[in-house]
Amino acid sequence: MDIKAYLKEECARVDSALDSFLPAESNPPCALHKAMRYSVFAGGKRIRPILMLSACSAVGGDISQALPFACAMEMIHTYSLIHDDLPAMDNDDFRRGNPTNHKVFGEAAAILAGDALLTEAFRLMSSPGSAPAVDAIKKLKVINEIAGASGSSGMVGGQFVDMESEGRPDIDIPIVRYIHTHKTGALIRASVLSGAILGGAEADSLAAMERYGRAAGLAFQIADDILDIEGTTEEIGKDAGSDEARGKATYPAVIGLSAAREEARNMMNEAVDSLKTFGTEADPLREMALYIVMRKN
Amino acid sequence: MDIKAYLKEECARVDSALDSFLPAESNPPCALHKAMRYSVFAGGKRIRPILMLSACSAVGGDISQALPFACAMEMIHTYSLIHDDLPAMDNDDFRRGNPTNHKVFGEAAAILAGDALLTEAFRLMSSPGSAPAVDAIKKLKVINEIAGASGSSGMVGGQFVDMESEGRPDIDIPIVRYIHTHKTGALIRASVLSGAILGGAEADSLAAMERYGRAAGLAFQIADDILDIEGTTEEIGKDAGSDEARGKATYPAVIGLSAAREEARNMMNEAVDSLKTFGTEADPLREMALYIVMRKN
Repeated sequence: MDIKAYLKEECARVDSALDSFLPAESNPPCALHKAMRYSVFAGGKRIRPILMLSACSAVGGDISQALPFACAMEMIHTYSLIHDDLPAMDNDDFRRGNPTNHKVFGEAAAILAGDALLTEAFRLMSSPGSAPAVDAIKKLKVINEIAGASGSSGMVGGQFVDMESEGRPDIDIPIVRYIHTHKTGALIRASVLSGAILGGAEADSLAAMERYGRAAGLAFQIADDILDIEGTTEEIGKDAGSDEARGKATYPAVIGLSAAREEARNMMNEAVDSLKTFGTEADPLREMALYIVMRKN
Repeated sequence: MDIKAYLKEECARVDSALDSFLPAESNPPCALHKAMRYSVFAGGKRIRPILMLSACSAVGGDISQALPFACAMEMIHTYSLIHDDLPAMDNDDFRRGNPTNHKVFGEAAAILAGDALLTEAFRLMSSPGSAPAVDAIKKLKVINEIAGASGSSGMVGGQFVDMESEGRPDIDIPIVRYIHTHKTGALIRASVLSGAILGGAEADSLAAMERYGRAAGLAFQIADDILDIEGTTEEIGKDAGSDEARGKATYPAVIGLSAAREEARNMMNEAVDSLKTFGTEADPLREMALYIVMRKN
């Protein structure tokens, strides 16, 4: 299959749905909705929502039922980037080649735009119009998975430990693994799992999908660490080498670049291996595992 | 009835439930959970959760089913206070007489503690163990109401307009009313409505409860504005007169203190009037409408 064409098509589907689900800029408070939309449409690759749709499809589900949840996931991811970029956090001026939210709208608006995106995700997922064919108990299960993956024992917890660990000389593999599996891995795992639940997967398929999501999530973040070293500023849309400059806890920093590359490949293989009971319907997930590790941005 | 004793008892019930629902400080990341708990247990009056329990009880419901949602509401309220107090927002050093979250844990931790509390609220509400006797469709409806009341067309929207309006000389009653009904009113209205839904209220009772919640919410914020002028710093736990010093859009600033007092009383009367078809089971709500306007902190 042509993974690039697939990603492009699914990205357009997610973008169009995000546009329809997000509050319009003409709705008050207009400036707040403008700030929310600015970061959502600042060039994201939509990896998480596409993984959710692909997992839904791989288990034989109807992706239109997963689409609102996929968009909610992207809203959560976007809020986390807005808050991560704040002066009190990573203090980044650029993200994906564009000025960060607080550089354009100011710090207070950026905090509130992030808060509002996170909240909007849960409003959307709990809306009666979202996934009307999926039963309410399953929807609650997905909301619970996504909330768990986003909060203090998921993404926010990972971000907190990442911040605590910055510049510390005693960082070891268990800490880096904790940061990666929580900060990035948790949302990716939850995306895949949610797509499978919404698609009606049985226990066996769910377990396989969870294994895929876990491996793909870790592979994604290790690949990100490597890109920060090997990519150019132009390719990755932010300052290359910034992790090292900040003393960030990364795989290459702790185990070296070549061992990190091997670990990313191992995780990619584990992700692909976890799909062995699936047929061609899981090809997009297989190709995405490769893409996650091989991408240049 | 003795409203003070009632509030004290219900406050203890909510505090104890919050303690059981919030992640323990001994769970990693410990420092993040400590920061979350610090603000939740910094002396809140628990008005919103108590209103939810009282509304549930007034329609004949079982308050144990509403308790997790009541605690989630308090987590959302607490997150909003942590973020409002940040240097980029209101830049407050004290809240309820205690140092604000960012003064104790630093700005980055305060941002993340707020994010995590908001997320935890949705995790708790969607948890299978929460309100097991309430059907899933009703739970989704309550989550949707609370998310709507908390986001860009609710509390966050109100906070955004409040911030935008600071120091502007052209603030009129429609703007102040927008700020108040959104920033404070939305969560109070949603608390009452959610309690009634979880308690199994029919359409008539729901409409009455919504009217009560709307009036009580506006009364609460006008009373807050008046307290900021008339209360002492010791009574209100933050600098008295700070609204005026900041050029905040308040009822007294726009229509004068005496007209603001009358509007608060009108709203209190409307709240009580909306309960006229209820018997003594709604006495706590009636007394709370009075308390909201007459309180000294």
